[in-house]
Amino acid sequence: MSTTYDFAAFPRREPTTFLERLLARQIRIGRLTVLGPGPREHSFGTVPPDAPHLDVVVRLRDRRTAWKIAFRPGLYVGEAYMDGALTIEQGRLEDLLEIGLRNTGGPSRRNLLRRGLRRLLHRVHQANSGARARRNVAAHYDLSDLLYVNFLDADRQYSCAYFATPDLTLEQAQEAKKAHLAAKLLLRAGQRVLDIGCGWGGLALTLARAGQGQVTGITLSAEQLAVARRRAEAEELDHRVGFALADYRWLTGRFDRIVSVGMFEHVGTPYYQAFFDKIAGLLTEDGVAVIHSIGRMDGPGVTSAWIRKYIFPGGYVPALSEVLPVVERAGLWVTDVEILRLHYAETLRHWRARFTANLDAIREKYGERFCRMWMFYLAASEMSFRHDGLMVFQLQLARSVDAVPLTRDYIDVREDAAEGRHAVADSA
Amino acid sequence: MSTTYDFAAFPRREPTTFLERLLARQIRIGRLTVLGPGPREHSFGTVPPDAPHLDVVVRLRDRRTAWKIAFRPGLYVGEAYMDGALTIEQGRLEDLLEIGLRNTGGPSRRNLLRRGLRRLLHRVHQANSGARARRNVAAHYDLSDLLYVNFLDADRQYSCAYFATPDLTLEQAQEAKKAHLAAKLLLRAGQRVLDIGCGWGGLALTLARAGQGQVTGITLSAEQLAVARRRAEAEELDHRVGFALADYRWLTGRFDRIVSVGMFEHVGTPYYQAFFDKIAGLLTEDGVAVIHSIGRMDGPGVTSAWIRKYIFPGGYVPALSEVLPVVERAGLWVTDVEILRLHYAETLRHWRARFTANLDAIREKYGERFCRMWMFYLAASEMSFRHDGLMVFQLQLARSVDAVPLTRDYIDVREDAAEGRHAVADSA
Repeated sequence: MSTTYDFAAFPRREPTTFLERLLARQIRIGRLTVLGPGPREHSFGTVPPDAPHLDVVVRLRDRRTAWKIAFRPGLYVGEAYMDGALTIEQGRLEDLLEIGLRNTGGPSRRNLLRRGLRRLLHRVHQANSGARARRNVAAHYDLSDLLYVNFLDADRQYSCAYFATPDLTLEQAQEAKKAHLAAKLLLRAGQRVLDIGCGWGGLALTLARAGQGQVTGITLSAEQLAVARRRAEAEELDHRVGFALADYRWLTGRFDRIVSVGMFEHVGTPYYQAFFDKIAGLLTEDGVAVIHSIGRMDGPGVTSAWIRKYIFPGGYVPALSEVLPVVERAGLWVTDVEILRLHYAETLRHWRARFTANLDAIREKYGERFCRMWMFYLAASEMSFRHDGLMVFQLQLARSVDAVPLTRDYIDVREDAAEGRHAVADSA
Repeated sequence: MSTTYDFAAFPRREPTTFLERLLARQIRIGRLTVLGPGPREHSFGTVPPDAPHLDVVVRLRDRRTAWKIAFRPGLYVGEAYMDGALTIEQGRLEDLLEIGLRNTGGPSRRNLLRRGLRRLLHRVHQANSGARARRNVAAHYDLSDLLYVNFLDADRQYSCAYFATPDLTLEQAQEAKKAHLAAKLLLRAGQRVLDIGCGWGGLALTLARAGQGQVTGITLSAEQLAVARRRAEAEELDHRVGFALADYRWLTGRFDRIVSVGMFEHVGTPYYQAFFDKIAGLLTEDGVAVIHSIGRMDGPGVTSAWIRKYIFPGGYVPALSEVLPVVERAGLWVTDVEILRLHYAETLRHWRARFTANLDAIREKYGERFCRMWMFYLAASEMSFRHDGLMVFQLQLARSVDAVPLTRDYIDVREDAAEGRHAVADSA
């Protein structure tokens, strides 16, 4: 009555778990081999000849992990990686993420129902009132110095660098970013400059050092404020640059120039109008503002659940179509929009290399799980800029039609001057 | 029983007609003096010390004209000017228009009801189906050669020039515009190039002349087509450039480069998605498109009733907030947005000067009323670019994240090369 099966006659078993069925349907580019839970082993997809790195083997610790990932990959792949429930046996984390991103439709999603749901969700996630904004900022930026020192550049620019040429070091590319922003700001001596979300003060100090105007930097992070103030004092620049623990909503007065780098991602769509109305209100009649932010090319979306939970609570990456109507209603001129593609991917690659090089020191202070979390954050972000339609936009704004020159040539001229490439007199 | 009044005791009589009451309330910048209807004479506002040209005297022929203007100035000021029912006794037409624009709130209008109404209206005005699009185009562009020869540049660029430096002649600025567009297109030998709305062929011929690719130009104007073909034959370029009477909706195939200059204004918002879906469908995977169009900085609006009736039936000037959602839904990358402010005002100033210089020849063929209509169109358009938030945007689009270089420096380099300013080798 017993029946024997020749298992060897099935060289590749058919997928049976829910996750396996999902992967069998979705993986078209690259090969993903999943070991576990238990003795299970399945391969999905094939290795493309032009991308041999897309061949990754992962191990799942238990059935629970497989179920959670199948149910909500955006949250649980990251969490399983942090907890060691998902380990990579062959290939790199970034290759695993690339396979994931390139097999889920990429940036061109047109499902209207999904869009509607996203819109609803992101208003809930981004109710960044004053108190909540402070908590969100503290969660990330109040992590002590040791972390940021170990992966950022010397000036601690925690935003997308500008690779004016591909061979720049991270330090040079961050200098180039500041020169690029300064050029767009068209700074003149004696002007009042506001930096909203000044971080550890790097940009504000650079502008003050060049002797261009009186700079005010604001942040919601007590840790950043302390560092920025220390730096200003150490350089004896504190008569030209001041820092304050302040919310943009509290500001009054007038500024000739306003710059905001990597802060708009924390504003939240329900506050976009308040933000740009504030910019319009703070700017002088012939003023100029530059907003530098991560954006997405494929329309309104929802920020990854994992990123929201572990990295940036309250964070949101806007599409230009969400920003421009608000700018128009604020009565501001859009005078230029630059789209920086892949610059942030390169920046993140540099950060990850530094983080890896300093892993022992970071692990000692923050532990293994934190390190895995941070590695996942840096790798996932880099891959999103390479394969999932993320970019950085620099929005130059003004209140008057003639606040900035009629052609964009001044941007190059001023950058070159800042970097001493030419002996060009500043003619503005 | 009779009472005598000392009229001289009232050095300035109080306004009494409806139009006069409106003007008394609205004119804050500049002085407008209205003579008539009949013996009436009223001045409104005061001349600003820094703008002595804002001192205009107009004469209204009759009460009917005054009523109509009060009721719907956007349509009837222009019509009265055309018909001689409104004449300018002191000052210039453009000064009258400047006073009008600077006293009606300017570009920052936030009335939601008005916005809603505008949105509703502009869908009706822009139902530019295939047949209607052809009629609309014929109404304007099939006007015979004589008109356009007498106010455009030698190459007949009927769109905003690019004043790379302020001292350029119109001819030079139009050459600079074409070089600027060509630089953004990143043309390489052997590429298939499509010019949607090619006009009299100037840009397509320029690209073909440079030996860069195989160019197809399409237009809906039989008159333009005939001229463009004649020019290609005369230059013996017809093996490199072809022209067709075609609607963009009919196109099939693939193009490496797509350019469209001053045509998007005729598409109509109901067809924006079809337009950009078509661009996405026609573009190769590594293709690049550049769309050059008039835009408005203050959000969705309604094109002037007068312009719609007499100049561009079916025309509409979009805000960026109306264009970007559609581009995102089409799955296209926005790789650059340049905002050209005041360049079109300068272009229109040149056109008007040429038109005026050739007035006798034009009047002989088209009559006095047409000349007044065209003068009003050119002056009103110029003033809208100076004082009412109009601009030109150049939208560079791609299907891949790496279709264009990572910095915008190539634009300058290629322009310089095109104009022989440097001996820069084309490195793309």
